[in-house]
Amino acid sequence: MNVIFASDHNAEPQDWIVPLQRELPDVRIVNWDDNGPAVDAQLAVVWNPPETLFMRETRLKGVFNLGAGVDALLRLPGLRADLPIVRLEDAGMGVQMAEYVAHALLRASRGFEQYQTLQQQREWAPLPDIQRAQWPVGVMGTGLMGARVAQTLAALEYPVAGWSRRGKDMPGVQRFASPAELPAFLARTRVLVNTLPLTPETRGILCRDTLQQLLPDAYIINVGRGEHLVEDDLLGMMASGHIKGATLDVFAQEPLPSDHPFWAHPGITVTPHVAAASLRDETISQIAAKIRGFLKGEALTGMVSRDLGY
Amino acid sequence: MNVIFASDHNAEPQDWIVPLQRELPDVRIVNWDDNGPAVDAQLAVVWNPPETLFMRETRLKGVFNLGAGVDALLRLPGLRADLPIVRLEDAGMGVQMAEYVAHALLRASRGFEQYQTLQQQREWAPLPDIQRAQWPVGVMGTGLMGARVAQTLAALEYPVAGWSRRGKDMPGVQRFASPAELPAFLARTRVLVNTLPLTPETRGILCRDTLQQLLPDAYIINVGRGEHLVEDDLLGMMASGHIKGATLDVFAQEPLPSDHPFWAHPGITVTPHVAAASLRDETISQIAAKIRGFLKGEALTGMVSRDLGY
Repeated sequence: MNVIFASDHNAEPQDWIVPLQRELPDVRIVNWDDNGPAVDAQLAVVWNPPETLFMRETRLKGVFNLGAGVDALLRLPGLRADLPIVRLEDAGMGVQMAEYVAHALLRASRGFEQYQTLQQQREWAPLPDIQRAQWPVGVMGTGLMGARVAQTLAALEYPVAGWSRRGKDMPGVQRFASPAELPAFLARTRVLVNTLPLTPETRGILCRDTLQQLLPDAYIINVGRGEHLVEDDLLGMMASGHIKGATLDVFAQEPLPSDHPFWAHPGITVTPHVAAASLRDETISQIAAKIRGFLKGEALTGMVSRDLGY
Repeated sequence: MNVIFASDHNAEPQDWIVPLQRELPDVRIVNWDDNGPAVDAQLAVVWNPPETLFMRETRLKGVFNLGAGVDALLRLPGLRADLPIVRLEDAGMGVQMAEYVAHALLRASRGFEQYQTLQQQREWAPLPDIQRAQWPVGVMGTGLMGARVAQTLAALEYPVAGWSRRGKDMPGVQRFASPAELPAFLARTRVLVNTLPLTPETRGILCRDTLQQLLPDAYIINVGRGEHLVEDDLLGMMASGHIKGATLDVFAQEPLPSDHPFWAHPGITVTPHVAAASLRDETISQIAAKIRGFLKGEALTGMVSRDLGY
């Protein structure tokens, strides 16, 4: 059985294929060649695969995504509606995302940015003590990533709420579910953290309409997808003062163009899509286990719902 | 019964005395007056009290300290060896210290300082993924503060060890105890976090002798006391490159003098003794409860051992 491997990860394809082949000795893993012929693959292991994948390999029985987000994959032409797609779950990403968000939150709530400026001025000036009640955090998306973020911040004793389509019960985290409860969720939130998957329903969800419902002096932390955020709306609401700061890891266009206003905005922290990297070793062993289970006909977690889009 | 209140907290004394008096209606709380007469107090509630306290109030039966550190208190003249001293425990400080240390660690391990520089240059340049195994953290001191720090970092999946005189078992934290195990603790540690109490044994414990035993490219996070650190040794070891960075909240002289080399050192982050503030409401209710227990002759936690010095 042939497995086509098509990934635009930075590493050499062989750094993935060799260990994956070792885990799956009974299949033949073939690296994608843009100019090559179809290899009649039954399975595909992909990350940002080329546009032509599904048009060339037409007999696929399953696709395994080397990341958690499948938004780009689902837009590829020729993707059959009945083709099962399995996505990576966590693989070391949840904890990284939790620490990225914790760092961004603490930098604001504990005044570390101000202390950095004070240090440059050689000024010893303690700021007023933090009042956690003034920093309610709201996490959009309560999958593996969002849940880990919410629980990490709750353990640091911030008031935390989670919102998602179906809602999720987590100890110490206030639960909001469905679009109907979004206004109540936003109205109690000062620090809004986005971990949602990108779907037609969530595209542009961070816009003037939602952002203006947040508490005053709000902060935005976006570790979902750039397309969740209407960038001009954020800039406008920061200019008007309702939103005080933003830490953004993802952007509508990546790399962020060098003339983009985010780079030099004093209230915006930009990082180059690094909040959570899937760890290669963990990714390979998890994907190999999913492939073995799939071939045996077992029920798998991480199955993508084409209706939900994630 | 008279209770003398002597504190150099920034707030007005009445902001402390009024709520404390409400909690303890059966005693009379008197604010310290530098020029006043002795009030024949039986109890003292103090924070950095004046030098003359124990010489003027000679019939004290107990002292309640509005902070966790008693090093300055124990140096005051006229302090009787048999006078019970009770210190504040946690009161919201543990979680603050945990988040201070987490922020400092993540800033280094996740490269957020480099990303800040890259943003100023409008440069989109992801750094290599973090390898947690390369960031073993060692926490000196495993009291309420140190334990909270260690457990917070262990929950973020860093390799964490704790070291203290008596050692402490904590899930997910490697245990080191006694001076005999200090070398082994240092040899596996790259990020050294100090939460020790200041005693004759711990004064100057962060010196060339100990710091050179750390792993290469070490980081120092000092949230204990300034006198734990031999400041010139740190500067020397940063110059030689063995120590890469330091985040310091406490200093031998506070406020840190404006001509001190720490202020402008590119590898040193300075904050003005703000890692953990005792929260007034929590402090008052905890100290009031301790006083009620003391007056009833109950066993109290937070009793200072004069032998141990904390």
